[in-house]
Amino acid sequence: MRTKVAIIGAGPAGMLLGQLLHAYGIDNVILERKNRDYVLARIRAGVLEQGTVGLLEKLGITERLHHEGLIHDGIELLFGGIRHRLDLKKASGGKVVTVYGQTEVTRDLMDARDKAGLTTVYDADNVSLHDFDGTSPRVRYVKDGVSHEISCDFIAGCDGFHGVSRQSVPASAIQTFERVYPFGWLGLLSDTPPVSHELIYTNHQRGFALCSMRSMTRSRYYVQCSLDEKVENWTDDMFWDELRRRLDTEAAESLITGPSLEKSIAPLRSFVAEPMRFGRLFLAGDAAHIVPPTGAKGLNLAASDVHYLSMALREFYDEKSSSGLDFYSAIALKRVWKAVRFSWWMTSMMHRFPDNDGFGTKLQQAELDYVVHSDVATASLAENYVGLPY
Amino acid sequence: MRTKVAIIGAGPAGMLLGQLLHAYGIDNVILERKNRDYVLARIRAGVLEQGTVGLLEKLGITERLHHEGLIHDGIELLFGGIRHRLDLKKASGGKVVTVYGQTEVTRDLMDARDKAGLTTVYDADNVSLHDFDGTSPRVRYVKDGVSHEISCDFIAGCDGFHGVSRQSVPASAIQTFERVYPFGWLGLLSDTPPVSHELIYTNHQRGFALCSMRSMTRSRYYVQCSLDEKVENWTDDMFWDELRRRLDTEAAESLITGPSLEKSIAPLRSFVAEPMRFGRLFLAGDAAHIVPPTGAKGLNLAASDVHYLSMALREFYDEKSSSGLDFYSAIALKRVWKAVRFSWWMTSMMHRFPDNDGFGTKLQQAELDYVVHSDVATASLAENYVGLPY
Repeated sequence: MRTKVAIIGAGPAGMLLGQLLHAYGIDNVILERKNRDYVLARIRAGVLEQGTVGLLEKLGITERLHHEGLIHDGIELLFGGIRHRLDLKKASGGKVVTVYGQTEVTRDLMDARDKAGLTTVYDADNVSLHDFDGTSPRVRYVKDGVSHEISCDFIAGCDGFHGVSRQSVPASAIQTFERVYPFGWLGLLSDTPPVSHELIYTNHQRGFALCSMRSMTRSRYYVQCSLDEKVENWTDDMFWDELRRRLDTEAAESLITGPSLEKSIAPLRSFVAEPMRFGRLFLAGDAAHIVPPTGAKGLNLAASDVHYLSMALREFYDEKSSSGLDFYSAIALKRVWKAVRFSWWMTSMMHRFPDNDGFGTKLQQAELDYVVHSDVATASLAENYVGLPY
Repeated sequence: MRTKVAIIGAGPAGMLLGQLLHAYGIDNVILERKNRDYVLARIRAGVLEQGTVGLLEKLGITERLHHEGLIHDGIELLFGGIRHRLDLKKASGGKVVTVYGQTEVTRDLMDARDKAGLTTVYDADNVSLHDFDGTSPRVRYVKDGVSHEISCDFIAGCDGFHGVSRQSVPASAIQTFERVYPFGWLGLLSDTPPVSHELIYTNHQRGFALCSMRSMTRSRYYVQCSLDEKVENWTDDMFWDELRRRLDTEAAESLITGPSLEKSIAPLRSFVAEPMRFGRLFLAGDAAHIVPPTGAKGLNLAASDVHYLSMALREFYDEKSSSGLDFYSAIALKRVWKAVRFSWWMTSMMHRFPDNDGFGTKLQQAELDYVVHSDVATASLAENYVGLPY
């Protein structure tokens, strides 16, 4: 098989890249280690920046998003027992975010890809990347016991943190930066109406909590937990009790609980690999960087990466210029580090750290107090939350 | 002796409070453990917020300040070898800072106090505070071997971090918060023209550096050093060489060096004691809180403290209301913590930390990059640097 761009991974990064390239007339094949249902069963974030929605609009696949997605003009920060609303729209000069599950984005992209008749190979085993340091890279995989090889011009590694793409790069060619946070998030998904029509980010002495949602009938809640917690030790009731303790009285009293559809613990980590280009292999999304979920930047960073990459590939094919490709890593990383900084800052400000002395806790309170009472500090949080410009 | 307010300490906090109270018709006595020349020989910061200058203007003692002080509209941040100018005036809606040494402020206040014929007792030994939990506090001291006692309505503790005032409060009544930074500043004062007409704050892989000044002919430079450095091991030449290494090429080449007038190492520390009121004893300035010098907030916080305290005392005497006094601690601390946060943030962003892994260094770069390129982030730094409103 031969294609222009072989895309590794059928998550939102790979799927979005595939559709953008298709829109630019660049044929591509997507290889995915798992099957379609497995990919769609992964519960992930659900807050889309305006730029991310813009990319989907460009592709004409926002019908369901505009119908089912929820426009959020603001968020609430809860600390010292009091909720403070931040008007993100006003503070960012009119920008908003859209609450729409990552799973739904992926599903819409898969449907569009199917409709366009483009090739996606699911259950592709033993994917391996070859010769991307030359001009004729190849990707090999095994499907149903049969070996296959794809010849291509470029490989896009969109296969996440644990994927094969970054691991195919010699360790000496890559530099990594990492921060592991000393806590995790215990999350619960339930078919209950959200406690508030906007997200509530909570700094409480018992730890961080987040009241989020997927729709007006499906809620997603999180409580900060220690890294040695086991999800099987948490009954639904225990979760709801712990969440309630971290909310203000009004929210605690109006919280509607129900059986969990899903419950899981995720550790929090910041990770960046540099550069994001190795010859004719380009990394995008979680394959190159991870942010803690505070601030909901993971999916949105994947979107800006594949935007830059798709524009660079378009320039290569349309204008025979490799300058976009040459600058891809630097341009993508500039935005990546800004989002890494924002996610680290939101995480640092909102969580209880095991080594927080009294000074650290007071600093958090001073920072929160400053953020909600200074117009420019609010605007700074807002411009990052709704998404810095591409 | 009897007075309304006994002020402990003849530094800028005590001196400014004394003049403000005098302007409001409230008689006061200042006790100082050292002599006048000793107080004036202490080298301290020299960047005044507009609010601090406003207080001096109210007292009519800004003739020399306006003649000799330098108005600064901006600062420069130097990182990655490139200087980025922040236009503080533009970013803060027209506010500026004034470069005028703390020593000069103190001298102007002392001169005004002398002219007004107010009592300042220098060389007051064994100062002790009594009965401030009742309505008739007293202060005792020894001068030239003779014991004295002052009866007063209130005591203002303006005697700095090591002073007797805070130490007179039972430990159980006071809560302290502290952060000790793992480095110090080696400072050098010289009669040389400053390398630039504005301050340069430098984040360099060898450590922080600051190019500051007292006038157009007197410079004050600092380089970050480890806590175990000894000032006597640093010749002037070694200092200048180290400073030059941390500057950009243009600054390094145009740096004019000369013999040091003073050279010293100061550790960096954040410290806050809460509350700031104990019965009829009120703490103000360094007696209650210390900030690292990054951001030049120490003197300015002392000024806002004594502003709040003088207004509260005026309300007490003019309107027979103790409500200002009752709220003094809470109101002062609100602004103190904002400045503590800002000073901590500037310190964290600009210094090399011994435990900085690669991630921490990249975060600093991302933060600096964000601060200089985002209008609202610049505005946030600016509003804090020029001074948050009282």
